[in-house]
Order: sequence, then structure tokens, then C-alpha cells
Amino acid sequence: MITKSNSKPRLYSFWRSSAAFRARIALNLKGISYDIIPVHLTKNGGAQFDPEYSEKNPTHLVPLFEDDLANIHQSLAIIEYLEETHPSPPLLPSSPGDRAWVRSLAMDIASDIHPINNVRVLRYLLKNLGCSIESKDIWYQHWVQLGLNSLEKQLSIDSRVGLFAYGDQPGLVEICLVPQLFNALNSGMDLSPYPTLVKILHECLKLPAFIDASWEKQIDAEGSNPSIPPQK
Amino acid sequence: MITKSNSKPRLYSFWRSSAAFRARIALNLKGISYDIIPVHLTKNGGAQFDPEYSEKNPTHLVPLFEDDLANIHQSLAIIEYLEETHPSPPLLPSSPGDRAWVRSLAMDIASDIHPINNVRVLRYLLKNLGCSIESKDIWYQHWVQLGLNSLEKQLSIDSRVGLFAYGDQPGLVEICLVPQLFNALNSGMDLSPYPTLVKILHECLKLPAFIDASWEKQIDAEGSNPSIPPQK
Repeated sequence: MITKSNSKPRLYSFWRSSAAFRARIALNLKGISYDIIPVHLTKNGGAQFDPEYSEKNPTHLVPLFEDDLANIHQSLAIIEYLEETHPSPPLLPSSPGDRAWVRSLAMDIASDIHPINNVRVLRYLLKNLGCSIESKDIWYQHWVQLGLNSLEKQLSIDSRVGLFAYGDQPGLVEICLVPQLFNALNSGMDLSPYPTLVKILHECLKLPAFIDASWEKQIDAEGSNPSIPPQK
Repeated sequence: MITKSNSKPRLYSFWRSSAAFRARIALNLKGISYDIIPVHLTKNGGAQFDPEYSEKNPTHLVPLFEDDLANIHQSLAIIEYLEETHPSPPLLPSSPGDRAWVRSLAMDIASDIHPINNVRVLRYLLKNLGCSIESKDIWYQHWVQLGLNSLEKQLSIDSRVGLFAYGDQPGLVEICLVPQLFNALNSGMDLSPYPTLVKILHECLKLPAFIDASWEKQIDAEGSNPSIPPQK
């Protein structure tokens, strides 16, 4: 038996953070009501280093999810927790093989694209390695293109793909894909080599769960969503 | 009902790959018999780019796990699949909150330390960004120290920690931790700031599942395990 939490869960979030964006989409898809507590990742050196937040989350990253039962600081661990405590609607398929396929695609983004390109890494390239802004941008696009090429290849040929990566309901793949594509578009990347991914992005942006989780809808938003290229 | 596979599963692996090392430990802990198919990541530009392997795994990374039901290319997705198809012995706790804690610690390594420091990233720093070997080593140690500091902090104060990260049985945290510590030791890092992590490493290396998965025990091994610092 799963004991449900009594008070509203809290999500420590930053409007532009891809990992926080993932958690917001998952909470919205599950229909869970939650409070957002903004953590500004860049102003005054970053609120993620404030003592109170560091105590709660020694990784100094966002998101952090808190309810009466748990304190979770990795976006995919938060999403697996939501899936276990609020099974409906499911964000993962039911068979182990399909679940593994969906998790792999999600981790292709969450483990192999995003961590090499997040704020702290790009800042280190500029400040500590002395990279030029141009080299930093080439670095960014290199890893994103490598990852998106592989995702497009996998999704363009698999019979499990429907309106979304797995059938006609959005789930863990879209939760990771949409924030990554927002980032890529914001950096000026051309998404025309990825028609399957762009088609899925358009499907997602028809849904309130994704729209409400997007950059410009956040209480701490300081800018708009990137403009979305038309579907071909 | 879960349909079990009939033929022996195959793991495409490289002796020094941390992600493949994770999958080997998990298979051993579960007592699953499997065949290793070596993929040499550095010789002749890397066998992960051979057409046959690229077709199976468009990410060009290891490991890749194959059985009669699935083809899985992300180590944590492989381990979740093994957990779902072979529940005993468990690699995750039973309650959602504890599962989330364990998954978060594992992802602190698998998503926030390892991807910034794997072979392809270090090679890019040297070849494409023109970093010196010294800068590359400082980069490596920076991200590993940041990650291990946070893990040591989390594990040194949590009442769930026993001989291992969660109680007295090894699981997903150790599966990720041991390969990461092997890498750190091999790069000459001092692990004395991390007594809790070193204590867990020593416990793991008493177990055949970890020893048999280690570098020097692989059919494609080209070197020994790093020397392990004494426990304090």
C-alpha cells in the first residue's frame, strides 16, 4: 500500500532549467497540485548555494521535490517516484522491454546530452578553461547534435512511435525531449534534420501540461519561450 | 506475468567503461548468466562506430544489453529492466521514498559526474578545444570532486546507511559508485576526503559480483584494477 502525502508538494525550480522543466511537466501530466519555490541559478552567484538550500540539496542543482514522505533531487528519480505513487496516467509503458526502451531514450537526453551542456559546465568552459564564446557554442551544438541525431534515428524507424515516442500518449521521452528542444532552439540551432522530434514537439505543445510547465508560464520567468519552427 | 528469455543474454562491453562495469555488477548480483561481447572503445578509432554495432546502438556507446525481448543501451535502463524481470535479490528498496533516494544517489554519479568525464568528452577537450593534458586533468578532478563531496555529505549523515548505502545489501548506489571510484583512483585522485565512500568500496570488493565485474577480470582486459587505499 502506498501512503499518500497530505500537504501540497513543493518543487524548487528555475524557469529556464531543463531538469526542473521535466519535473513540472510530469507533475502536470499526473494532475498533481504543487507549489513552485523559485531558485535563481545565476543572480548573485546562484541561490542554489544559499546555506538553507544547500542543506536540503547538497548537489546545488534544481529541481528539488519535497512532500511529506520524500526529498528528491534528481529529475528522473522524482518522475519514477511520481509514477510509483500516482500510477495514473502512466508515464511509462507496461512491459519491461518497452519501459527499458522509453527509459533509454529519456536517459539519452538526461544523461548524455544535458549534463555536458548545463549552466555550470558552460560557465566552467568560459571562466576556468578560458574558452571563447564561439568555442563554447560549438561545444554546445556538438553534443546536442550528436544526441539528437541518435534520437531522430531511433524514433524515425521504430514501430512503437505514434503521435508521441511511445504510442499516442505523452510520457517520459517527451518530458525530457521538450526541455532539450527548447534549449536547442534558444541557442539558435536548426532543427530541420530532426522532423520526427519536431513533430512530437508540436504534439506536446497542444497540451496544457507542457504549455503550463514552459518557460514563460513560470512565476519566475524572465523571458519568453523560444519560437517553434513550423512542422514540415 | 513476465515472460523470461530463453537464450543467454549478451552484454556488449569494454573492460574500462564505467557504464558497462555497472551493468556487469548488476547481472552478477542478480545471478544471471550472460555472454560478454567486447567493443574496443579506443583502438582504430573505436569499434563502437563499426556499422554493425552502430545499427544496434546509434548512440555509439557501451554497454548494450540484448536478450530475446529487449535491446537496451543505457546502463540504468538495463538495471531497471533486470530489476523488473529478475526481482530477486532486489537492487532497489521497496518503499517509493527510499527508492527515490537510492535512484538520486545513483544518478548523481551516472548523470552528473560520469557523462562530463567519459572518454569522448575528454577526447573532445584535448582534440577539439585544444586543452592541455593538465587542463583536462583539472577538469576531470573538478567534476569528480564536486560529485563525491555531495555523495559523501549525503551518505555520512543518513540513517539508512549500513554496510552499504541502503542497509546491509548492495544495490544501485554501489553499482554506480564502485566504477566511479575505480576511475577516480586510476586518475590519481586522493579519496581520503571520502571515508564513507571508501568504506563502502571495501565492502563491495569482498563480494564476487563486484570482483568478477572489475577491470582485470574481463576477457578484454588490458590492465589491472587500480590499487585500493586502505580503510581508515
